[in-house]
Amino acid sequence: MLYVQKFGGSSVANAERVFNVARRIADTYWKGNQVVAVLSAQGDTTDQLIQKANEINPNPSKRELDMLMSTGEQQSVALMAMALQKLGLNAVSLTGRQIGLRSSSTHGAAHIRSIDPERIYSELERNNIVIAAGFQGVNRYDDITTLGRGGSDTTAVALAAVLEADFCEIYTDVDGIYTADPHVVKTARKLDEISYDEMLELASLGAKVLATRSVELAKKYQVPLVVRSSMSDAEGTIVKEEAKVESTYISGLAMDKNVASISIIGIRNEPGMAYKMFSLLAKRKIIVDIILQSIGRGATKDIAFTVTKNDLPLAVKLLTDNRTKLGFEDISYDDRIVKVSVVGAGMASHPGVASMLFEALYAGGVNIMMISTSEIKISVLIDEREAEAAANMVHDRFFTGSAAIDARR
Amino acid sequence: MLYVQKFGGSSVANAERVFNVARRIADTYWKGNQVVAVLSAQGDTTDQLIQKANEINPNPSKRELDMLMSTGEQQSVALMAMALQKLGLNAVSLTGRQIGLRSSSTHGAAHIRSIDPERIYSELERNNIVIAAGFQGVNRYDDITTLGRGGSDTTAVALAAVLEADFCEIYTDVDGIYTADPHVVKTARKLDEISYDEMLELASLGAKVLATRSVELAKKYQVPLVVRSSMSDAEGTIVKEEAKVESTYISGLAMDKNVASISIIGIRNEPGMAYKMFSLLAKRKIIVDIILQSIGRGATKDIAFTVTKNDLPLAVKLLTDNRTKLGFEDISYDDRIVKVSVVGAGMASHPGVASMLFEALYAGGVNIMMISTSEIKISVLIDEREAEAAANMVHDRFFTGSAAIDARR
Repeated sequence: MLYVQKFGGSSVANAERVFNVARRIADTYWKGNQVVAVLSAQGDTTDQLIQKANEINPNPSKRELDMLMSTGEQQSVALMAMALQKLGLNAVSLTGRQIGLRSSSTHGAAHIRSIDPERIYSELERNNIVIAAGFQGVNRYDDITTLGRGGSDTTAVALAAVLEADFCEIYTDVDGIYTADPHVVKTARKLDEISYDEMLELASLGAKVLATRSVELAKKYQVPLVVRSSMSDAEGTIVKEEAKVESTYISGLAMDKNVASISIIGIRNEPGMAYKMFSLLAKRKIIVDIILQSIGRGATKDIAFTVTKNDLPLAVKLLTDNRTKLGFEDISYDDRIVKVSVVGAGMASHPGVASMLFEALYAGGVNIMMISTSEIKISVLIDEREAEAAANMVHDRFFTGSAAIDARR
Repeated sequence: MLYVQKFGGSSVANAERVFNVARRIADTYWKGNQVVAVLSAQGDTTDQLIQKANEINPNPSKRELDMLMSTGEQQSVALMAMALQKLGLNAVSLTGRQIGLRSSSTHGAAHIRSIDPERIYSELERNNIVIAAGFQGVNRYDDITTLGRGGSDTTAVALAAVLEADFCEIYTDVDGIYTADPHVVKTARKLDEISYDEMLELASLGAKVLATRSVELAKKYQVPLVVRSSMSDAEGTIVKEEAKVESTYISGLAMDKNVASISIIGIRNEPGMAYKMFSLLAKRKIIVDIILQSIGRGATKDIAFTVTKNDLPLAVKLLTDNRTKLGFEDISYDDRIVKVSVVGAGMASHPGVASMLFEALYAGGVNIMMISTSEIKISVLIDEREAEAAANMVHDRFFTGSAAIDARR
């Protein structure tokens, strides 16, 4: 079997942890498997390098920043190969360039264009364990690029796809995907399986275990993903196309605190007003999520929508500056809200899920400010002070006791 | 004009020094020149990386050590490019691979095979300042190599040769090549010019300013070298094929403390004995320097020679172990000696130099243990307790007052 195993920065933060990971890789190898391990930079290395750069130039070119930052992974793969050699194994470290990872030219947030696996194959044929630098590649000018947020996950999934690996294991500090954040919801439990689509919704809704891009890639190439803990031998969660049906139609609950709502009151009720308003925001790369529009009565209507908390000040300023042009009466905003979402592939064919959610919130006296739905998820906006209680109530309703049985009917 | 400028690790040890060097590069550029700067790793980086490796595996493969160590220069070139960008200049950093440096495969001590300057040319054509990582290249397998001792000097000289640079400036912590070590000889003075051959003799005799390999390369390709200080604007010393004649026939005095002598007493006076003895040492890579053999009288003769202090214990053990086979009577050694050498291209045609040297030592009551001569140098072995006094006497004899005038006649 061919395993691709990805380990994050905290898993290789010091010599002791490097050996923990090395032993895990060695175990897989000793069982007769081929292993390609993908690593991030060691713990604090990234921060230290950013600080070094800041001392010299707080605003350096992204090309040079990539040149600097990519040394972090290069160091961690070299050290891991040394650790495996110490354990008596043949290991070879490879840079992003050496694993043949060609990317787009956008330094700091490059996309993978292609992977030429020749070098990896030739190392595997010589029975070497391959330790590959995650997060990095080279562009068409042969300059080093970094892949941006979640880049090492993406490297691992892309390698697994190209090498047609039997397993792509993502090692992290939690032991799998949970039905909700265990820090918030006490009764949250680990899922054995989840579908790519459900995982995508959860990832984009604030579950931070896997980067959205890596899940998209896994779905596209049907890479069998396993999310598991680098600290324990627990089995983890398998992410695949068709996950087996759990006891309810929803597989998880996500909570996103990075959300704020803006209400535009009394905008003229004529065609093109929404377009004018949202294109103003789009030009400044402000992403608008849930949009709610009142039914126009007479000359005016109201529009409310959500943005991320970071974008809120700019969005409010842009709209206020263009108040006359857009011709609305008033603007208000609220950044003390939270988005709670339930995700489940079985939802589409079971309309009862939405009403179960509303019922649970109503029973708990939680006011719903906005609602948004897709094929496999329902999101509601609520007051942030009620978020934790609401998450627990909703989770209990779907995952424990008689409610779960209700939903299965 | 095209300048290649090389800066060592201490010159770029922290943000302040990085900017010192950046301003020097900028000055050269603003005067209308093209600049390729070659950098070593920042101050302590190399030691820190070695320590990290040691914690994990005190005996890692040299390939992985090169993978790790090469990140040091990659970081310093990225930071230097950022500093130049901060000064408003266009600069681009390049790894050993990107400057097209192909090397032999011997990790940790690779030799330069070739340099493909295409990338550098295209950056220079776009008016970019090029910041190149010294000390590193890639071998035929596309693996990162390091060039070993003095590697950054060698990178700079090789680049200057390939690019046909007008100047190759080696910036260091002294302001040029001196007639003797200024810490030992108070009257030592800086040379304006010195020939490659003289510099080679000085370098191999213990003057540490330039690595021997880089001088050999400069001579081979007739690269105009300048050795100067990164701390001052002093003019430095030019190293070239034909240096202008100074006031005496010697250009410098070198002192080498890493030397020990071995005397073999009463070895059989028959053919092949010297061969047997020295091949024994050569097999263990022990380099023998000065050899002195007594004229055989009757059945036996004596042989004395020098090795480095580090090799002394092994050499003595090898010879003692083979005493019966080699058939000598006694062995003794002395590691409290020093080799003092005078170097000068004018020496060959002026036999008076040797007698001036002997005269100066005789006048000072210094006993000469061994003598070795070449076309352009004379070395003597003396007691280490007399070394400093002898160096000063010899230097004074050649470089100051009436003696210098004597020698010119």
